[in-house]
Amino acid sequence: MILVIKQNHDVKQLDNLIGWISGKGLKVNISHGDNTTILGLVGDTTLVDIELLESLDIVESVKRIQEPYKKANRRFHPDDSVIDVKGNKFGGGHFSIIAGPCSVESEKQIIQVAEAVKAAGAGLLRGGAFKPRTSPYAFQGMREEGLTLLLKAKEVTGLPIVTEIMDEKHLDLFRDVDIIQVGARNMQNFELLKQLGKVPNTILLKRGLSNTIEELLMSAEYIMAEGNTNVILCERGIRTFEKYTRNTLDISAVPILHERSHLPVIIDPSHAAGIASLVEPLSLATAGVGADGLIIEVHNDPPHALCDGAQSIRPEQFASLVTKIKGVLNVVGKTYN
Amino acid sequence: MILVIKQNHDVKQLDNLIGWISGKGLKVNISHGDNTTILGLVGDTTLVDIELLESLDIVESVKRIQEPYKKANRRFHPDDSVIDVKGNKFGGGHFSIIAGPCSVESEKQIIQVAEAVKAAGAGLLRGGAFKPRTSPYAFQGMREEGLTLLLKAKEVTGLPIVTEIMDEKHLDLFRDVDIIQVGARNMQNFELLKQLGKVPNTILLKRGLSNTIEELLMSAEYIMAEGNTNVILCERGIRTFEKYTRNTLDISAVPILHERSHLPVIIDPSHAAGIASLVEPLSLATAGVGADGLIIEVHNDPPHALCDGAQSIRPEQFASLVTKIKGVLNVVGKTYN
Amino acid sequence: MILVIKQNHDVKQLDNLIGWISGKGLKVNISHGDNTTILGLVGDTTLVDIELLESLDIVESVKRIQEPYKKANRRFHPDDSVIDVKGNKFGGGHFSIIAGPCSVESEKQIIQVAEAVKAAGAGLLRGGAFKPRTSPYAFQGMREEGLTLLLKAKEVTGLPIVTEIMDEKHLDLFRDVDIIQVGARNMQNFELLKQLGKVPNTILLKRGLSNTIEELLMSAEYIMAEGNTNVILCERGIRTFEKYTRNTLDISAVPILHERSHLPVIIDPSHAAGIASLVEPLSLATAGVGADGLIIEVHNDPPHALCDGAQSIRPEQFASLVTKIKGVLNVVGKTYN
Amino acid sequence: MILVIKQNHDVKQLDNLIGWISGKGLKVNISHGDNTTILGLVGDTTLVDIELLESLDIVESVKRIQEPYKKANRRFHPDDSVIDVKGNKFGGGHFSIIAGPCSVESEKQIIQVAEAVKAAGAGLLRGGAFKPRTSPYAFQGMREEGLTLLLKAKEVTGLPIVTEIMDEKHLDLFRDVDIIQVGARNMQNFELLKQLGKVPNTILLKRGLSNTIEELLMSAEYIMAEGNTNVILCERGIRTFEKYTRNTLDISAVPILHERSHLPVIIDPSHAAGIASLVEPLSLATAGVGADGLIIEVHNDPPHALCDGAQSIRPEQFASLVTKIKGVLNVVGKTYN
Repeated sequence: MILVIKQNHDVKQLDNLIGWISGKGLKVNISHGDNTTILGLVGDTTLVDIELLESLDIVESVKRIQEPYKKANRRFHPDDSVIDVKGNKFGGGHFSIIAGPCSVESEKQIIQVAEAVKAAGAGLLRGGAFKPRTSPYAFQGMREEGLTLLLKAKEVTGLPIVTEIMDEKHLDLFRDVDIIQVGARNMQNFELLKQLGKVPNTILLKRGLSNTIEELLMSAEYIMAEGNTNVILCERGIRTFEKYTRNTLDISAVPILHERSHLPVIIDPSHAAGIASLVEPLSLATAGVGADGLIIEVHNDPPHALCDGAQSIRPEQFASLVTKIKGVLNVVGKTYN
Repeated sequence: MILVIKQNHDVKQLDNLIGWISGKGLKVNISHGDNTTILGLVGDTTLVDIELLESLDIVESVKRIQEPYKKANRRFHPDDSVIDVKGNKFGGGHFSIIAGPCSVESEKQIIQVAEAVKAAGAGLLRGGAFKPRTSPYAFQGMREEGLTLLLKAKEVTGLPIVTEIMDEKHLDLFRDVDIIQVGARNMQNFELLKQLGKVPNTILLKRGLSNTIEELLMSAEYIMAEGNTNVILCERGIRTFEKYTRNTLDISAVPILHERSHLPVIIDPSHAAGIASLVEPLSLATAGVGADGLIIEVHNDPPHALCDGAQSIRPEQFASLVTKIKGVLNVVGKTYN
Repeated sequence: MILVIKQNHDVKQLDNLIGWISGKGLKVNISHGDNTTILGLVGDTTLVDIELLESLDIVESVKRIQEPYKKANRRFHPDDSVIDVKGNKFGGGHFSIIAGPCSVESEKQIIQVAEAVKAAGAGLLRGGAFKPRTSPYAFQGMREEGLTLLLKAKEVTGLPIVTEIMDEKHLDLFRDVDIIQVGARNMQNFELLKQLGKVPNTILLKRGLSNTIEELLMSAEYIMAEGNTNVILCERGIRTFEKYTRNTLDISAVPILHERSHLPVIIDPSHAAGIASLVEPLSLATAGVGADGLIIEVHNDPPHALCDGAQSIRPEQFASLVTKIKGVLNVVGKTYN
Repeated sequence: MILVIKQNHDVKQLDNLIGWISGKGLKVNISHGDNTTILGLVGDTTLVDIELLESLDIVESVKRIQEPYKKANRRFHPDDSVIDVKGNKFGGGHFSIIAGPCSVESEKQIIQVAEAVKAAGAGLLRGGAFKPRTSPYAFQGMREEGLTLLLKAKEVTGLPIVTEIMDEKHLDLFRDVDIIQVGARNMQNFELLKQLGKVPNTILLKRGLSNTIEELLMSAEYIMAEGNTNVILCERGIRTFEKYTRNTLDISAVPILHERSHLPVIIDPSHAAGIASLVEPLSLATAGVGADGLIIEVHNDPPHALCDGAQSIRPEQFASLVTKIKGVLNVVGKTYN
């Protein structure tokens, strides 16, 4: 960490500051220039509150050299984390696919889709029970009942399941959910993250619409700091000025996250663009860019889906897509599932 | 609401669609062109799920004419809502100021600041007890204890208090909080919003970093739909590419919100820029633009504040600012307090 | 095009408006609702000035149904345009690669790189002579002299060349340049675009940092409207809040542009991220997403490149990358070159 | 400037680098830590090419401490620059207003508007002759003829004039234009900026839609480095995700620019929002925030303006606005004109 000290600073204040920093167990290197004095802080700066330093009278600016995340940091965990969910592996050269409808709508629907995506090669089933919706008047999901139906589909097909939690008060209901998803809008719901750090389930952490890559890693750190290291990161599009797509898929986030973290990274092409015809090209780009998996919306009857149907593809499209994905994985040297 | 129908659509599908819409109590006007057929939906379209329509095979695009919010909409409530918090009025030509430290740090600190801002002319006291922080290793606020101290400051000074809630499980603790603040990161924590719709307290709803003005109004709608209409909106900066300020204050949001909604709108200049020297110019801009109030960070010892100190001003700066604000309010025809 | 007319409008004004529109050769369908009157304009609305209509007293809003571009529009030109530059084809199932250094630095350098990229499989040579730089104090390129050296490299290797124009006054110097590049900062330099519409060279039009996909197509339209239809579009990253990459590659722009336009679309992964280690993953994503080509920075000595070296890869990395790209093209059914 | 050197770097490479930097006349302070070595460069680093340093093998990252602009920098020119255009002063406590129509349409129109804005208190007349338009099919301005009419209005009313240049080839026509405007789309048309650095006219430099405050200052530096120091900066809205306004007025840019530069800063509220009803509140915010002037669109017949009419206000609205602006200027201690 580097502190740029203001010109014409009070010498005594500087001495105080250096003393205070040294007291935190950090080494301080001082570099005096004509116009600027610079302090280099060496040691574990993860615990230093950067905003506190910035607020000091004599400090002009603070620049981090080390990343503020630790447990999610590849620097301290050089090998890929491989997360194995009932035989479906994410990371370390493995690539898995989660597929299923936006919302659970009925027992028949969720079981039909589950069987269809299983036949097409998906390793895990997704389905929304609690649905975050912008409008209070829009369909809010089947909630508890949806969760029950999803568990039934798991029982029938053997597919592990992935579904979103919206509030920690529902946590008990999620005991048998294999992967608990934190949606984009809750990526910085810190009280929820802390609770998820205490459960044994794998957590799928989606990047918020306007959150930086660093903030995504800091939210993973919230979960990991409480003990749960089974975290999968998910890029699902960020908010930009472009209007032809619902969000802008930040595909560069995948190699950047891989450089900085050991956690697996998957992409959600369905929500990123919000357009069914983009699911195939974006999924093939995902395989090409080196991601560790995909989460794709598949519906047996998209035109009648209760929500987000515009971005769902049909099982037969999904089956053809899986074949192509395997082709690309072969080129980039990854193993499917 | 307007539906653009795809070229070469199936006539029977179109008939079905028109039948289904009519069944919802809406009138449908059809306009056939050479290349396009357009349906105009007339009636209360607030309850129509736009994404469901977009997902239909024969629909090319859907365009809303009416806004999707109702209780927050000025169209159905032409007069300003005036929210009166123990004599401090927001809206309808009234302007109030909330001031206080970022975080409650000790009994002495919060009472000192409370007395200082009261003397300088503030009508309400703010102070953070539960603090949302990007890093799990940063100071998380004094939490329950901070709330107790804040209530003490209320008792001593008579100032009504404003503080942030982070989780509905803490709601009981907030009974005597005059204005419960929903922070930017929780603007779309829909489960929390629903609970806040059931309490008698006034709610200060802050715009999320990357949320549109429409989404802010939809979140207000979540609260109002449950019965609580005491909602104050707060613009506090949005996330853009600019890096010299922490966020970009979207000052145009004030007149836009006033045109579309009857709810009062205030600005938080401290968090918008994250720089103490910008608090005064942005506050005077706030008065000029026609907002209904301000929430300002004031600290008796900014260099030692435990968080966000960089954006706090001192009581004497605050006192001088209040005088200037009153001058501008006079020009624009608003009443202070 | 749809015009929403204000409530309580003057009936005579509406009659005037309808008469004026009809006079432009457009058919007007009127739909009267309880709260809104809607006009549907049918016919060629490309020439209608949307902002003029928006400015009329009685108009509440205007919504386009048809795209405002015509010559670039796939609706009127359903087949892919295939652009053939000395045997290197872009579009219609063909994929070509342009490679070379950021800047031309010396005769030896440009010829060495040209031979290296040719050997590795590149079909065209890029090299900057006129360099747009944020700082007036930074290296501005070798300018005329750089262009001469680039033409020499073309002569020696037989590779067609691609280089950027910054001002129409230099147009004479570009006669033998096979592809004239319009940089991101000049995407809306309309006077320059008009001149480029009058030359026989192929134009590589790069998307501006904050320009929408629609604006990119409108700028292509400026060139095409003057007669030059040899336009290749290039996505090279847009400006967002994310800071770990220089720009955010908007990979979804490729399938979106393909749906809306017949023009070929390539990607520049070097400038998009500004990081050499991201060139390979983003290039493989480019092949996967269905783009028609790549423009990649390759330098024989990246650590000493005079500009943008941080994002250049070495010839041997490039050669290995080309092999993998061919593998992905095979999966998606595209022909290399 | 600070260079963070990679872990496990080659010692000889580091020596070479230090020697090379010292050769540029800069002093190098070295700080060795456990994991990082940091070089502090002291001296005039304006001329150092930051991207070149970033590209070096042994460099992990480079962080600027000093700003890369010099002539525009307040550090080297602590007093406000006051720019006096025929008695209308911008900066140093003075506030002036430029007003007029979006486009020059006819002799009668421009003279009428000029007389109206003069009567209402404007000190300078604006009017577009060369118009940058997204669509090649939209009205492109009256061009040379428009300029002639504008000069006529200047002659008749005595008001100095402001109009936009789109191409350096038109520079001769602008000899008698008092303030030459560089539009947002040309802010980084560096060849044009260089030419404008050689003329005696005042330059009004508008911030690009997606340009940072630092880039705006660097573009001012391009002009000033060639000798022309009469530069007025203009904030006119940036591109963000928000859709209810055309652009997002970045009002914080005013105090930030004032802290970093001595150049005057004005605001264009008409283009920022694109909505006539926002011109008054945003103008009063401009006066409150401490800007040095305004450029406002005024039209005697907005509903029939040939372009951008939606954002124009009428002369009588303008006159009432000027009175209120003077009231706010009085509060913040500025002199009108």
